[in-house]
Amino acid sequence: MSGEEAPTQQQPPEQEKKPEDPPPAADAPQEPGGSPATPAVEEKEVKAEEEKPVSWRVLVLTGHGGYDKVKLQVKTQSKPPQLKAGEVLVRVKACGLNFAELLGRQGLYDLLPAPPVTMGMEGSGVIEAVGDDVEDRKVGDRVIAMSRCGMWQEMVVVPVNRTFLMPEEMSFEEGAALPVNYLTAYMMLFEMANLRPGKSVLVHMAAGGVGIAATQLCQTIQDVTVFGTASASKHETIARGGVTHPIDYRTKDYVEEIRKISPKGVDIVLDPLGGSDTQKGFSLLKPLGILVVFGAANCVTGQKKNLLAMAKTWYNQLSLNTLKLMQSNKAVSGFHLGHLSDEELISSAMFKLLELYRQGKIKPCIDSCYHFEEVAEAMKRMHERQNVGKVILLPEPKKEEEKPKSAAEAGENEGAINKKEEEVTEEVKAETD
Amino acid sequence: MSGEEAPTQQQPPEQEKKPEDPPPAADAPQEPGGSPATPAVEEKEVKAEEEKPVSWRVLVLTGHGGYDKVKLQVKTQSKPPQLKAGEVLVRVKACGLNFAELLGRQGLYDLLPAPPVTMGMEGSGVIEAVGDDVEDRKVGDRVIAMSRCGMWQEMVVVPVNRTFLMPEEMSFEEGAALPVNYLTAYMMLFEMANLRPGKSVLVHMAAGGVGIAATQLCQTIQDVTVFGTASASKHETIARGGVTHPIDYRTKDYVEEIRKISPKGVDIVLDPLGGSDTQKGFSLLKPLGILVVFGAANCVTGQKKNLLAMAKTWYNQLSLNTLKLMQSNKAVSGFHLGHLSDEELISSAMFKLLELYRQGKIKPCIDSCYHFEEVAEAMKRMHERQNVGKVILLPEPKKEEEKPKSAAEAGENEGAINKKEEEVTEEVKAETD
Repeated sequence: MSGEEAPTQQQPPEQEKKPEDPPPAADAPQEPGGSPATPAVEEKEVKAEEEKPVSWRVLVLTGHGGYDKVKLQVKTQSKPPQLKAGEVLVRVKACGLNFAELLGRQGLYDLLPAPPVTMGMEGSGVIEAVGDDVEDRKVGDRVIAMSRCGMWQEMVVVPVNRTFLMPEEMSFEEGAALPVNYLTAYMMLFEMANLRPGKSVLVHMAAGGVGIAATQLCQTIQDVTVFGTASASKHETIARGGVTHPIDYRTKDYVEEIRKISPKGVDIVLDPLGGSDTQKGFSLLKPLGILVVFGAANCVTGQKKNLLAMAKTWYNQLSLNTLKLMQSNKAVSGFHLGHLSDEELISSAMFKLLELYRQGKIKPCIDSCYHFEEVAEAMKRMHERQNVGKVILLPEPKKEEEKPKSAAEAGENEGAINKKEEEVTEEVKAETD
Repeated sequence: MSGEEAPTQQQPPEQEKKPEDPPPAADAPQEPGGSPATPAVEEKEVKAEEEKPVSWRVLVLTGHGGYDKVKLQVKTQSKPPQLKAGEVLVRVKACGLNFAELLGRQGLYDLLPAPPVTMGMEGSGVIEAVGDDVEDRKVGDRVIAMSRCGMWQEMVVVPVNRTFLMPEEMSFEEGAALPVNYLTAYMMLFEMANLRPGKSVLVHMAAGGVGIAATQLCQTIQDVTVFGTASASKHETIARGGVTHPIDYRTKDYVEEIRKISPKGVDIVLDPLGGSDTQKGFSLLKPLGILVVFGAANCVTGQKKNLLAMAKTWYNQLSLNTLKLMQSNKAVSGFHLGHLSDEELISSAMFKLLELYRQGKIKPCIDSCYHFEEVAEAMKRMHERQNVGKVILLPEPKKEEEKPKSAAEAGENEGAINKKEEEVTEEVKAETD
């Protein structure tokens, strides 16, 4: 499907000259309950005591298009972060890469402000400063942080209620991998779809972040059958992870394969694809079954916006009326974490997920870690669906002698990534305090 | 809305002349898992031992249109019922009237075969004969019986797996009132909508059969808030039944009323109305909420098919695409018991409902009982939404001296029914054996 060659050349970071440059995420939507992560560069009066200049590395989406639109920059400002009441400053150690960011780069993600903007919805790190009225966090706490966008930078300011204390045994990479994928899977399976013992679930892209999270969460309920689509090379891994019936969607018709095993179909379909796959999913539902659409990955073909793919996807999209639903006794729902502004729902689900992690029932699967310099490769890996589990971005600069920390568990795909070890001629000023 | 005057004149039953007349329900759809109730007049060879002629009272829909299209007939045949393996003969004591039959009379119910046909999807009675291979039923058993159509007659033959033993303390009227309303409410609340403690539910027509069943089932879960629409005169009754917030939909905008009490909306909307009410229901949903559409009562205005009302209802019907669902994190589903052919699901829910009845947690509310002769009045009562609870039809002939057994609990509406006590000049031959 992807006919375009992805550029693998890494962009040198652009040194920001203006110390008072507006922060990349300042345009992010201020929706109720979810204020965006913003670097602490507010134009407030600065207290005289701390006037140390700060710099931080940040990935900036400079326009819509291919991989080259995401540029590494180093921002500098003369003033230290000014925290409002209830905010904390987090030094980010790892960020999650999500499908939403592939869409965002192409200009297909409606929740992302116009470029220039910093993407990223999840990360983990260490609290470096706390604002007034912050009682349950202190400097040095290891936290997961969430935001609508703006997480792909070395330092972020977030409201304290968008941070979650990490269990001791959790790595930063795991922390960054948890929120979006596991919240999405959790909400879909338990809030929307009412997963119960004995049910069956179709998980598309079962080796992807949400796919693995959903499979693990299915294991927490007795006797759940998981049909998982993935390319054949990933079957062993996903079967080990709990997929009852791995299906190679590239060589087989998954509808037929499922019907062979379960003629009546399945109870729950989790659909990140859209288009004709949504129709297939609907047709596969048993009576009283539910289809949860949570993406339109079929829109993403080449690395740039593909109007034809979009048109095709939407043309084939399930069109519904309630009569059709009544005649088939089926349910269709949509889930999009970015559109969920109820902080209470999110927090409550996060606490449950962290508890499941502590109990050893879930564990994020890290596919690979890329430094900010390598963001194009990271996106390409996800775009081409080579990942098994989560792709992580690391703000810290790549050391020249360092081996690439990637594809540890997905060795079969490693060759597919063209890792040019080009020198990045940047002057990194981050981590100053 | 209803501008037409319903005829209250009762039709004298038509004496059937041809003893071998094809049974009214023989054209019913033979869908998998749900064979229709048929009177036992199959053209099989008759065993010589029992040649007693049989007659039974039956309501026949003779064409689509107003109340007068449902006619009471007495059918006679020379041969006794011939049961196939797995079938039982039930002498019906009470039948349920459902909205589907109002639609069916108007020609708006797609599952009903063309007239002449006998309607009726539920009833209760006593087993009078059992076919081969029937092990868990015996003559004399009191049972609830279900069918796709054909229950509105004094005798029916049904597959044994479509019958359910009645608890001793259950009356025939209660038995006939249970299946359609309680299965519908149960499936919607617990299979589709995942009702859990602390949730809120909007129940339209809260004084109707499904409305009362849903309200009672909500009481079986801790801390559920029920918003119920009904005309003001019924509020005391529905509040006693468990509706937390009764709302008079005739004088107030229920959307506004609900928003005043719960600004965020509700978790579950049960929608039997269709049209613009479906849109309103969708708008009232909280994130992760679900709308369950289970009817299009708004199509039914006058007593005859109203193309304008239908067009208006469908024009205003919610049109959905998955993008809209994703952006709002909502679910829409349809439920229609008639389209649910999974016998296992139905049986399993019926057993749970009968257990809840035994525990005293649910109890069908009988609005009124009408003899077959009075079917037009029964339908009118439901059509004009005067009922509080279930309207029951009784196959047994009305005794001349008998007071109408109706509206016991709905005294405030009794005057609205024009009960002409006209003599029915029929020769009833039923109950011959």
